[in-house]
Amino acid sequence: MSEQRPVIAILGGTGDLGTGLARRWVQAGYELIIGSRTEAKAQAAAADLLQLMADRGVEGVSIRAMDNTSAAECAQIVAITVPFSHHASTLESVRPMLQGKILIDVTVPLVPPKVARVQMPEQGSAGQIAQGILGEEVHVVSAFQNVAAHHLQEGQELSCDVLVCGNKKDARAQVIELVEAAGMRGFHAGPINNAAAVEAMTSVLIFINKQYKSHAGIAITGLNE
Amino acid sequence: MSEQRPVIAILGGTGDLGTGLARRWVQAGYELIIGSRTEAKAQAAAADLLQLMADRGVEGVSIRAMDNTSAAECAQIVAITVPFSHHASTLESVRPMLQGKILIDVTVPLVPPKVARVQMPEQGSAGQIAQGILGEEVHVVSAFQNVAAHHLQEGQELSCDVLVCGNKKDARAQVIELVEAAGMRGFHAGPINNAAAVEAMTSVLIFINKQYKSHAGIAITGLNE
Repeated sequence: MSEQRPVIAILGGTGDLGTGLARRWVQAGYELIIGSRTEAKAQAAAADLLQLMADRGVEGVSIRAMDNTSAAECAQIVAITVPFSHHASTLESVRPMLQGKILIDVTVPLVPPKVARVQMPEQGSAGQIAQGILGEEVHVVSAFQNVAAHHLQEGQELSCDVLVCGNKKDARAQVIELVEAAGMRGFHAGPINNAAAVEAMTSVLIFINKQYKSHAGIAITGLNE
Repeated sequence: MSEQRPVIAILGGTGDLGTGLARRWVQAGYELIIGSRTEAKAQAAAADLLQLMADRGVEGVSIRAMDNTSAAECAQIVAITVPFSHHASTLESVRPMLQGKILIDVTVPLVPPKVARVQMPEQGSAGQIAQGILGEEVHVVSAFQNVAAHHLQEGQELSCDVLVCGNKKDARAQVIELVEAAGMRGFHAGPINNAAAVEAMTSVLIFINKQYKSHAGIAITGLNE
């Protein structure tokens, strides 16, 4: 079964969101590569992940550790979960390795210290920046920006929907499959320009979390009427 | 009871969203003024609303019709639900009447014909444009952008949350009261800059509606943990 599935790399796979997604996909049976700026950091995260999977009784997992460039080269689908300040430079460094592939952009363009205030980049969104850097031969699909890392890291059910934006419907559909493998509902949410809405919503959710002491997410209502 | 409640005006109160909000607030017992560019259009909408309330068996309603300027003058809280192309000009025409009041901005900066694509204005959002035009003595609070007009117009329960953005917490709280009066949950969602997230989300919901044949809205999840 796993032969037919894409190998996934997570660039910046050692952070909260990266490790959260890694846990979900490994547990769902995907071959995973953790990428980091240094291979040593990736190896430490991979060791932790292996241990956690053993603790959870998950068997037959495939986890590798590489630097970001090698990770991007060896995977069929590549996710990036780095801070916005490293987003452009990381993408530039792996541009040749991503040609013809899907890049899942999880980046939120937060501008510290006011992370609860929407401050979008001139280009519209991180997703549009990624598409601009990588060119049209890379299928940039933005997703997962509104999921609390805290919730991803847990093994339990998640009550947060994932809005999936990208210019190619086929690429969005492949990412929606990965959303579902991670235990959530995914929705076609439009072209990559629409990533602006989803990325901006993250600051709103951060504000709500401060205000209401929560780990808030969003759900789509009003379907099936 | 109604003496203590603010009188509400809806500028552009003859459109789908305006009439939807009007129905909700009148039914909740608020005194309402329907504003329009011409008083005659407002009167027609007010007559329809009176008839509908009678059909629904709602008694003791207070509905007046005025041109936008008089409506803004006579109300304590003013909502604006005009198309984005009339947003700035309408606000400029009522600026003196709004000083010291709350302006509920329901405007979504859609750019036809591609309304399912996020295309935000240079200033960030319609809410920020309104705050800029009206000045700091007007409490601009953005809300209701993600609610399907179709659902507001019905009398039934609504499964859509309302994200409420504005620079003053007190003003947001008063609008949240009006959200609840209209039958929905309202959330403090941050400063007026955060309206960008909510306004942009409307294009995402339009895309989802086309894709999934729905009248979609959003809900906040992950509260009370």
